[in-house]
Amino acid sequence: MLATVIHAPRDIRVEEVADPVLSTGGDAIVRVVAACVCGSDLWPYRGVTPTDRPHRIGHEFVGVVEAVGPEVTTVAAGDFVIAPFYVCDGTCANCRNGVSTSCLAGGWWGSDDRVGGFADGGQGERVRVPLADGTLAVVPGPVADAEVPGLLTLSDVMGTGHHAAVSAGVGAGDAVAVVGDGAVGLCAIIAAKRLGATTIIAMSRHPQRQALAREFGATHIVEERGDAGVEAVRALTGGIGADRVLECVGTKESMDQALRSTRPGGMVGYVGVPNGGPELPVRQMFNRNVGVNGGVAPVRGYIEELLPDVRSGAIRPGLVFDLELPLTDAAEAYAAMDERRATKVLLRP
Amino acid sequence: MLATVIHAPRDIRVEEVADPVLSTGGDAIVRVVAACVCGSDLWPYRGVTPTDRPHRIGHEFVGVVEAVGPEVTTVAAGDFVIAPFYVCDGTCANCRNGVSTSCLAGGWWGSDDRVGGFADGGQGERVRVPLADGTLAVVPGPVADAEVPGLLTLSDVMGTGHHAAVSAGVGAGDAVAVVGDGAVGLCAIIAAKRLGATTIIAMSRHPQRQALAREFGATHIVEERGDAGVEAVRALTGGIGADRVLECVGTKESMDQALRSTRPGGMVGYVGVPNGGPELPVRQMFNRNVGVNGGVAPVRGYIEELLPDVRSGAIRPGLVFDLELPLTDAAEAYAAMDERRATKVLLRP
Repeated sequence: MLATVIHAPRDIRVEEVADPVLSTGGDAIVRVVAACVCGSDLWPYRGVTPTDRPHRIGHEFVGVVEAVGPEVTTVAAGDFVIAPFYVCDGTCANCRNGVSTSCLAGGWWGSDDRVGGFADGGQGERVRVPLADGTLAVVPGPVADAEVPGLLTLSDVMGTGHHAAVSAGVGAGDAVAVVGDGAVGLCAIIAAKRLGATTIIAMSRHPQRQALAREFGATHIVEERGDAGVEAVRALTGGIGADRVLECVGTKESMDQALRSTRPGGMVGYVGVPNGGPELPVRQMFNRNVGVNGGVAPVRGYIEELLPDVRSGAIRPGLVFDLELPLTDAAEAYAAMDERRATKVLLRP
Repeated sequence: MLATVIHAPRDIRVEEVADPVLSTGGDAIVRVVAACVCGSDLWPYRGVTPTDRPHRIGHEFVGVVEAVGPEVTTVAAGDFVIAPFYVCDGTCANCRNGVSTSCLAGGWWGSDDRVGGFADGGQGERVRVPLADGTLAVVPGPVADAEVPGLLTLSDVMGTGHHAAVSAGVGAGDAVAVVGDGAVGLCAIIAAKRLGATTIIAMSRHPQRQALAREFGATHIVEERGDAGVEAVRALTGGIGADRVLECVGTKESMDQALRSTRPGGMVGYVGVPNGGPELPVRQMFNRNVGVNGGVAPVRGYIEELLPDVRSGAIRPGLVFDLELPLTDAAEAYAAMDERRATKVLLRP
């Protein structure tokens, strides 16, 4: 079968690899219907994180189960499933606490899975899914092709945007600012509106993303950054700052923007992977009682909550995909995202 | 009248100063019944923060109102009042949001109050209280002398410990660890128990404070620090760490202890004034979804909630005072706290 392999920075190839086989009793084999490229896939692509040897890549996919191991009880051949961007058992103490990204038995796609050897990457024709009972979420009934992009966002970006909003404690009537207009930031706007925010400020300079932000529920656009951005947010929030700010980038500058745009007593919900590890200025946070909460989003646990709204069309996160390519064009998908020609690319095997 | 004045590091004097006078329509004059020394008063005492010129000091006191300005409506001469460790109007946007420490019109004792000139320190025979309506909390009915220590803790340490617990989101059944066994840490134990925590781990090496921690509700004592402290907390919490950790010190080491003792998805509530500004390790927080929330505690807003439990004896935070001295011995009070001969010193004018 074909799968995407990264060999080195900017060297993405779609190659013939061995078909996956059930290797533990808890495995499933999933035929991928759609996968996508994540902003974090660009880190090895750009050489920010090293690629020591060629390895499979990709961690967001939906598909149809082809086979399951004898211990699997919650998914069956023929089921349409959503895979979160990580593997989890759903039963350990951390999973029970809602933090399945810290699953004591779990792991990451394209990495060692601690169970059956190397876990496949998600950008391929088929994927072996360890801990299938905990990892996979079944989408009941027939799935229309038009539903696929929306369902695929539940593997990462929609759940991650939701996690930013949940971590920040967004509630009815809140004024929320969103830092970052990538796919996650756009989904965070959807999440904020869904949780009842009435003022939603999208910090964006990109005309097409601004338009999508407004479609998703943004009430205001702020193009300014730095001090001017802080002042613009304050001007829209009675002079004090936003109740909740969703940080969806991960740079030192974006976190600074988020912290300073939050009102005293407010909270930053952050899901941008900290890029290079900026530290947080605790004294500034302390003086203004600005909290910081979030992290690598436990999206598996959000799928059941968000799925009905995605299927009904109440929320339309699938609109973040602005380019669709065949899997064989994965290299172009990476290039398009790297060069910011696309917000989010969907790949079809 | 007499009041405490700091002249330089380790130079605390009780001196004759001018009697306070009503200088704005919103002022009150309060005769101090009891004041105390705060851990943060030790910063200028130790020279950690500079003392450019002699100035009044102290920010925790209770007393009886002697006079009020014509605009004051909520307190009257004869009222027994609790003053929080700051001045606030109770009406601005931040006060309405529950963050009265960020009052847009407020300020600090022993500093410029932006209203009527320099605000008095709290360690004196009388204090001019600006914005008396917002600042002072009235204790109804007659106040017994034995109640004074408990009421005095509502000016700072009990409300601050409570803020740590509230900021961390302590709830019924939680496992909570408390870093710091000073007056605030001990009050945080009271607060955690009051909010329903069932496992309360006090991190303390001091026998007398351990005993008080147990009296206040600690179910376990951990003497270890660093890696051993983290392991000890994990051993008491099913191997994953505490749901909520209350950081009541403010050093880099104590915050590190708190962050690493928290389970994935848990929250650190912090009220220790960051000493020298340690930065927070955001990547470590991100990977484990450990949030940080808290800051300078808006204790004024907590007085009404905590007062009934203090008066009924349901909670007994006044036990944190282990030394009582006349105001004229303020220098000895500072020395006793500096040398850790006392946890918290009560001063009687």
